Amino acid sequence: MVKVGIIGSTGYAGQELVRLLLGHKEAEIVWYGSRSYIDKKYSEVFGNMFEIVDDKCLDDNMEELSEKADVIFTATPQGLCASLVNEDILSKVKIIDLSADFRIKDVSVYEKWYGIEHKSPEFIKEAVYGLCEINREDIKGKRLVANPGCYTTCSILSLYPLVKEGVIDPDSIIVDAKSGTSGAGRGAKVANLFCEVNESIKAYGVTTHRHTPEIEEQLGYACGKEIMINFTPHLVPMNRGILVTAYGNLNGDYKYEDIKKIYDDYYSKERFVRVLEKDVCPETRNVEGSNYVDVNFKIDERTKRVVVMGALDNLVKGAAGQAVQNMNIIFGLPESMGLEQPPMFP
Amino acid sequence: MVKVGIIGSTGYAGQELVRLLLGHKEAEIVWYGSRSYIDKKYSEVFGNMFEIVDDKCLDDNMEELSEKADVIFTATPQGLCASLVNEDILSKVKIIDLSADFRIKDVSVYEKWYGIEHKSPEFIKEAVYGLCEINREDIKGKRLVANPGCYTTCSILSLYPLVKEGVIDPDSIIVDAKSGTSGAGRGAKVANLFCEVNESIKAYGVTTHRHTPEIEEQLGYACGKEIMINFTPHLVPMNRGILVTAYGNLNGDYKYEDIKKIYDDYYSKERFVRVLEKDVCPETRNVEGSNYVDVNFKIDERTKRVVVMGALDNLVKGAAGQAVQNMNIIFGLPESMGLEQPPMFP
Amino acid sequence: MVKVGIIGSTGYAGQELVRLLLGHKEAEIVWYGSRSYIDKKYSEVFGNMFEIVDDKCLDDNMEELSEKADVIFTATPQGLCASLVNEDILSKVKIIDLSADFRIKDVSVYEKWYGIEHKSPEFIKEAVYGLCEINREDIKGKRLVANPGCYTTCSILSLYPLVKEGVIDPDSIIVDAKSGTSGAGRGAKVANLFCEVNESIKAYGVTTHRHTPEIEEQLGYACGKEIMINFTPHLVPMNRGILVTAYGNLNGDYKYEDIKKIYDDYYSKERFVRVLEKDVCPETRNVEGSNYVDVNFKIDERTKRVVVMGALDNLVKGAAGQAVQNMNIIFGLPESMGLEQPPMFP
Amino acid sequence: MVKVGIIGSTGYAGQELVRLLLGHKEAEIVWYGSRSYIDKKYSEVFGNMFEIVDDKCLDDNMEELSEKADVIFTATPQGLCASLVNEDILSKVKIIDLSADFRIKDVSVYEKWYGIEHKSPEFIKEAVYGLCEINREDIKGKRLVANPGCYTTCSILSLYPLVKEGVIDPDSIIVDAKSGTSGAGRGAKVANLFCEVNESIKAYGVTTHRHTPEIEEQLGYACGKEIMINFTPHLVPMNRGILVTAYGNLNGDYKYEDIKKIYDDYYSKERFVRVLEKDVCPETRNVEGSNYVDVNFKIDERTKRVVVMGALDNLVKGAAGQAVQNMNIIFGLPESMGLEQPPMFP
Repeated sequence: MVKVGIIGSTGYAGQELVRLLLGHKEAEIVWYGSRSYIDKKYSEVFGNMFEIVDDKCLDDNMEELSEKADVIFTATPQGLCASLVNEDILSKVKIIDLSADFRIKDVSVYEKWYGIEHKSPEFIKEAVYGLCEINREDIKGKRLVANPGCYTTCSILSLYPLVKEGVIDPDSIIVDAKSGTSGAGRGAKVANLFCEVNESIKAYGVTTHRHTPEIEEQLGYACGKEIMINFTPHLVPMNRGILVTAYGNLNGDYKYEDIKKIYDDYYSKERFVRVLEKDVCPETRNVEGSNYVDVNFKIDERTKRVVVMGALDNLVKGAAGQAVQNMNIIFGLPESMGLEQPPMFP
Repeated sequence: MVKVGIIGSTGYAGQELVRLLLGHKEAEIVWYGSRSYIDKKYSEVFGNMFEIVDDKCLDDNMEELSEKADVIFTATPQGLCASLVNEDILSKVKIIDLSADFRIKDVSVYEKWYGIEHKSPEFIKEAVYGLCEINREDIKGKRLVANPGCYTTCSILSLYPLVKEGVIDPDSIIVDAKSGTSGAGRGAKVANLFCEVNESIKAYGVTTHRHTPEIEEQLGYACGKEIMINFTPHLVPMNRGILVTAYGNLNGDYKYEDIKKIYDDYYSKERFVRVLEKDVCPETRNVEGSNYVDVNFKIDERTKRVVVMGALDNLVKGAAGQAVQNMNIIFGLPESMGLEQPPMFP
Repeated sequence: MVKVGIIGSTGYAGQELVRLLLGHKEAEIVWYGSRSYIDKKYSEVFGNMFEIVDDKCLDDNMEELSEKADVIFTATPQGLCASLVNEDILSKVKIIDLSADFRIKDVSVYEKWYGIEHKSPEFIKEAVYGLCEINREDIKGKRLVANPGCYTTCSILSLYPLVKEGVIDPDSIIVDAKSGTSGAGRGAKVANLFCEVNESIKAYGVTTHRHTPEIEEQLGYACGKEIMINFTPHLVPMNRGILVTAYGNLNGDYKYEDIKKIYDDYYSKERFVRVLEKDVCPETRNVEGSNYVDVNFKIDERTKRVVVMGALDNLVKGAAGQAVQNMNIIFGLPESMGLEQPPMFP
Repeated sequence: MVKVGIIGSTGYAGQELVRLLLGHKEAEIVWYGSRSYIDKKYSEVFGNMFEIVDDKCLDDNMEELSEKADVIFTATPQGLCASLVNEDILSKVKIIDLSADFRIKDVSVYEKWYGIEHKSPEFIKEAVYGLCEINREDIKGKRLVANPGCYTTCSILSLYPLVKEGVIDPDSIIVDAKSGTSGAGRGAKVANLFCEVNESIKAYGVTTHRHTPEIEEQLGYACGKEIMINFTPHLVPMNRGILVTAYGNLNGDYKYEDIKKIYDDYYSKERFVRVLEKDVCPETRNVEGSNYVDVNFKIDERTKRVVVMGALDNLVKGAAGQAVQNMNIIFGLPESMGLEQPPMFP
C-alpha cells in the first residue's frame, strides 16, 4: 500500500487526486495538505466528500510528511515545490510535482516565462518529465517527477508521432487550444465568476502562455532540434476538458493511411491514447472524468497541411490522472490502476 | 458473474447502466439492446465508449435474451416492458424495469396518469417497488423489480422519515423539484435543443406529472392512508441532477435535534443516503456521478413548517445506479458493489 | 432631458442601468459612480461598452452629484444609501434606491433581517415602495423611491391579484424561487466561481432570506393583515432570470375562467405584465433582457391549491428596468420609455 | 416606412430579424413566413414575442409577398432562395438572402462545396456580396444582396486590412473559429440536444466547411489573387457568439504601431467595427445582442506571425443585424438604424 501525501489538496487538481486515489486499491491518502483550510474538515471544503473523507486539512510540513508518506503530490502554485524540496526530503520520499517547477530543463527559460526565481535548480536535471507514454522507462524508480501541464500533455501527445517521424515541419506548428474553466483554478477572481465566463469564449495569454516553451522543449527532443511554435489558449464555458486543434505543414505527399499507420504504431498499445476512426473528431465530453486522450487528424490536400486534434480531461490526464499514472510507474504497479473508469457522459 | 442484458442501452439511462456495469466486478454485459441502432457499434453511438465497448447494438428479442442473461434491465419508454414480459421469460430471467410499468399497484391509476393500456397487469402484484433503502428485504430474490422514478426516489427518501413518524401532515406536502436535462431523454425534440434549454428555467407538467401518484402511493404506505400532494417539476440548464425542495406542516413543536435524530435513525447506516450537517443545503454537484442522495431539512418556526431538501444524480440513484443496487440485492451481492466511486466535482 | 447619476455603476445592476439608459431618449448619464474603480475608464471594466461609454468612474460624492443630476440611482450594498441620504440632498435630487434600505416600513424588521443599523430611519416613512404596477399613483413626483427586490417583484406581481381578491389563504403561501447567478453580485467569491455554480442547483437562505419580510409586508397590505409565508430561493446555473413557483390554498371552488378573469382585470392594461395563455408555463428565457413579467397559474382540483408561476429578468424588471420605470413615472415621462426592446432569445 | 417580408422567420436568424426590426423606426414586418408553422401564431412559436407580435405564420408565396413587401429577407436553407427568385419578383422587391445561394461568384465552386445544383445561376453576377464595411457603395440601390455567412463576416473583417495591405502572406492564413450553438440552427437533431452540446467542445467540418471558399473568394479580391486557407469551425456550449483566432505569416518586420495604424485606417470610422486597445482580447460576451465586431491582433516576434482575433454575435452581425444594415444601405436609411442597442452583459 503506497502512502500518499497531497500538498494543495483543496484546489481542483488536488481534489481530483483525492477522488482518483480513493478508488485506487494500492494507495492510501495520509495527508490532506491545504494552507488555506488548515484544521477544517476536508468534506466541509468539498461537500461531495461528505462521509467519504473524514480527515482534516493539514499544513505543508514537508519534513513531517516525508516521514509519513511514500510519495508526495504537490498540486500547488508555481515556485512552491521548488522552495520546499531538498536532498533530505528526496532521500525519503518520491515527489510528483504538478506545478511547472521541474518541467523545463533550462532554468533561464523557466525564469523568463514564469517571472520567478527558481529556488532549487540543482534538482532540475534529475527530475524526469512525466509524460508517461513517451518517458515511461525513464520514470521507473525516479524520485522526482515533473508532471506535465494540461495543455502540454494534449498538445504533445497529439503531435508527437508526426514530429518524431518528420511528417510535418515543426516550425510551422500552430496549436490553438481550448480549455474548460477548472484550468483557471479555484481562486476567488472576478474574471472567473460564473457570469463572467458563462456564454462567452475568449483567447488569453496570446503569444505569452507559459506552456509554450514546455511544448517546444518536448517536441524539440522529438525532432532533434530547437523549434518555435505558436500556442494560443482559449477559455470555454464548461467545467472540464481541453481540446487542441493543431496545424502543421506536411513534408510530403501523405495519404490518410500513411499517417494513420504512424499514429497506430505509436499508440495502438497505449491504454490511454485512443486514435479515433477516420473523420471522427475528438470531443472533450468523450473523455470527461477519465484518463483518456482522444486524437485524430485530417489531411488538407488543398493547403498541404494536416489538422491534428486532441481531447483530454484537464483534471485527469492533464493533471491528477497522469500524476497517478506516474505514481503507478514509479512504484511498479499496473499503470492503469485506479484509472480504469470509463468517461462519464453526459 | 451475473450476465446482464440491457434493453434501451442507447438512452441516457441505458448508457449510464453500461458505464456502471463496466466497473462492476461481478457483472458482465452480454446484450446491448437498442431498436434505433441495431447492428451499429455501441461506441459509434457513444464515443466515450470507444475502445471500451466493442459490441454492436442488438434488438429487443426477450426470448433469446432470457436464455443468455441472468437479468434484463429495461430502460425503455413506458409500456414496452409490460408488452414484452410473460411467465416464460420471468421463469428464466430477472427483470429490473426502469420504466413506470410496474411501479403503481392500482392499474387504473397507471392507465389514467400515463394514458396507455397496461399490457400485463397480471404481474403488477408480484412486482416489488425497488426503492432499496425502504424495500430491501422484499427485493431479495424477486424476479420482477419496478425501479423507482428519478423525482420519486428523491422525493420519497427526503420525506419518508417525517411521514412515517407522523412529524408532518402528509396532505400538506408540496414537492417543488428541479431536474437536469438528461431526465428529458435523448429524443430529437426542438424543446430539448441546447439553445432552447440553456439560460432558462421553467416548470412543466404542473399538477399533471406522472411521478405524482407514485410519490403519493409510497408515502401513503408510510403513513397508512391515501394522501394527495402537489408535485411540480422544473427543467434546469444542466446535464445531471435532481433537487427536491419539499414543504410540510409540522404536527407539533419539533426542535432541530428531534428531527435530526429521526433522520439519523433511518439513514445513519445507509451507505447511499447522507444526512447533511446543520444548515448545509444539498447541492446536485455534490452527488454527480454517484449513487448518493443528500438530504437535509430546516424548521421554520415562524410558519410551523419544515423545508426538506434532497439531491441526487437522476441517472444514477435516480435510474441506473439504483437499478444496479437492486441487482446486487436480488443476487445477494454486496449492495454497494460497482457503486462506490465518489461523486465527481467539478 | 433627465440628468442621471449612478452610484454603484460597476455592479451587474449598475451596468444594466447604463445599458438601458443609453437607449433612453430623455435620459443622460452624467455620473458613473464606482468606489472600486475610481478614475478607471468605464469601458475597461465592461468591455461591451467600449466606444459607447467614454467616461471614467467617479466616487460617490452625493453632494456634488446632487448638484449635477436630477436623479440618482443607488445600486449599492444594503446600508450605503441610508448612510448617504439627507434632507439637503433630497431637496435637490430624486433618489431611486435599488438596495433594501427604504423598502421595509418597520425599521426593527429591517434591522433584524439585515443585521445592520439603519442610518436614516427618518426617511423611511416618506419613501415610496416602487412596485410600479401597484403603487404607480404614489410614485408620481416622489423624491425617494425604494426600488423593490428582484425575488420580491416576481413574487408579489405573481400573487397580488389572488391575495387582494381573497382567492387564496395568504398564510398558506409558499414561494419557491429560482434565480440566475447575476443576482449573487459581482464580488469575487469562491462560491460564485464558474466551476462552483455550473452544473448544479441548490437552495440557500432557507427560512432566512431577506426578501421574505418584504414580500410579507406588501402582500399583507393587499389582504389587510399581517401574514407569514415561506420563501426559498435557489441558485441556478444561468446568467439572468428569476422564476417563482408559488403555492396557495384556494378559499373556494374556483374555475380556470374565474381566476383568469381576475388576472386579466389587474394586468390586461399593464404593458409589462403578460398573463400567459392557458397551460403555458412562464420561462425565464422569454423575458431575458426585457422589463416583462410573465405570469400564469394552474388550479389543482385534487389538492384545492393553485400553483402560481412568474418569470422576469432579475436585472431588468427585478432591478434596473423597474428603476427606470420608476424614473419615468416620477418625471412624467411615458412609463415604458427606454424599456421597449423585446426579450432576446436565444 | 419599409415593408418587410421574412421567409424563414421561425429559425434563429429569422427570429432575430423580427427582434431587430421591431425596434427599427422605418421598418414594418408585413409577412412572417414559415413553412413549418403555417397558420400558427408567431408568439406560440416564440414565447418571448407574446403580446408583441400578434401575427400568424404564413407560407413562402414569393409572388404574393413581392406585391406586399418592399424587401424580402430569406433566412432559409441553402437552395431555397435560388429556387424562388425570378426576374418578375426582382423587378418588384429587393431580396436580401441570408443563405449562401448568391455569395459565391463561381457557380461550380458553389455546387461543389454545397453539393446542390444552383437553380438560378443567372442572378449570381448581379448579386452583391453584402459585407457592408467593404462593399457599402456597391450595395446601394441593389435589388439582390447575398448576406455573408457568420464565420465569414468575422473572418474577413478580422483579416481584411492585413491581406489588403500585404502585411501577411495570404496563403499562410489559418482560421480557427469557435461558434455558439444557435449557429447550428433550430432543427430537431440529437447532435444539438442540450446534453450533447453542453460541457463539451469539438471541431467539425474540418477542411470541408462551406464557409471556406467564401472566405477565400473575398480575401482573394483583397489581395488580387486566388488563395487557399485553412478554416476549422468548432462548436461551443453557449447560445450566441463567434470567435475567430487567425494566424498569418508576416511579410516584414512590423511593429505593433504599424499594424494598429492599418486597422485604424480601415475601421476607425466604422460604427460597428471596434479595434480594441493593446493586449485586450475580443470576447464574444462583449458583443452579445449587438451588431459590433471586436477585432484585435498580437504580433509574435519569435515566430514572425501575427495572431488576429475577431468576435461577433453570429445572429446579429453574423446574420440578421448585417441583413438589416444592408437594408438600411439599400433604402438610403442611416446605416445603424435599428442596430444601436449596446451589447447585453451578462
